[in-house]
Amino acid sequence: MPVKPDVLKRQSVARTRLFQVEELELRFANGVERTYERLASSGYGAVAVVPVTPEGSVILVQEYGAGINDYQWGVPKGAIDPGESNLEAANRELQEEVGYGARGLEYLKTIHISPSYMARSIDVIYAEDLYESSLEGDEPEPLLKMEWPLSKLSDLLARGDVVDGISIAALFLIRDYLLTKQAPG
Amino acid sequence: MPVKPDVLKRQSVARTRLFQVEELELRFANGVERTYERLASSGYGAVAVVPVTPEGSVILVQEYGAGINDYQWGVPKGAIDPGESNLEAANRELQEEVGYGARGLEYLKTIHISPSYMARSIDVIYAEDLYESSLEGDEPEPLLKMEWPLSKLSDLLARGDVVDGISIAALFLIRDYLLTKQAPG
Repeated sequence: MPVKPDVLKRQSVARTRLFQVEELELRFANGVERTYERLASSGYGAVAVVPVTPEGSVILVQEYGAGINDYQWGVPKGAIDPGESNLEAANRELQEEVGYGARGLEYLKTIHISPSYMARSIDVIYAEDLYESSLEGDEPEPLLKMEWPLSKLSDLLARGDVVDGISIAALFLIRDYLLTKQAPG
Repeated sequence: MPVKPDVLKRQSVARTRLFQVEELELRFANGVERTYERLASSGYGAVAVVPVTPEGSVILVQEYGAGINDYQWGVPKGAIDPGESNLEAANRELQEEVGYGARGLEYLKTIHISPSYMARSIDVIYAEDLYESSLEGDEPEPLLKMEWPLSKLSDLLARGDVVDGISIAALFLIRDYLLTKQAPG
């Protein structure tokens, strides 16, 4: 493993309602010093949930993204609340955004939106054995839903309104996980 | 297609060396009004380049990520400079980070780091027919490199130091693209 740079100084340089920008002064193992900026994380992480039906379809939601000022399809996602486990957060987000709970929830992998610039991590959770159950979320409008067969993932990714990197990574991870589970031997 | 919310007001609420936070006041089609925050983009987008050897291995780089304060393996990435095309940026980043140029460069898909909170887009570029060529980059230290067979992608993703969502999405996209290209008929 490489030696991490020494953090010579660390300070907050901006704070808004949602974002906090930190400045890090670093000295790398070779002596080079650099100043980096990054976004601090809210601290509890987040989940991306991939709900799979008995027929092998994923359930996607269409949500307005203020970042791109457009609607796009992806898997249900959300922040982990204080005191919640990642699986509890996944089951809550599923009920808020999709109208299902899940009896089977499995943690697959922790990924990062942007390791260079953001502390925020996202746990990819597989959800199966779904049952109807709704919780009130904080969405400004009801989300559209659709089911898409995992066997036709490339057709889904060819769409111009499927653009979220985390959803794409999560869908592939789930597809590979299920293929491995089903493989003989 | 759903009707986009009206943007009632848009203003910058914080600006640092790297980040600009914008506040959007929105009115959704159902009349609900909400205030959102998002990070504005530098404007030229970015590329994630997946260089593939004749043996079917991808070349990965190990880079320090200030966001997670750790080293991690991923595909070469970088911002598109003013006046550059996405393929030109891909070939430059490849020479800066990996020490190769590519005679074959192909655009696959535009994805987003976080459609909800960030305007920033990333073009996934496939690179083949590599040749040795280096350009001076702005990295504080030389990057380690490794080749990894695409046929063993799940072993790669099982590693705790492979966590970048965009790299994971890009690697899967390339693997599927190459499988489709090789498939008979």
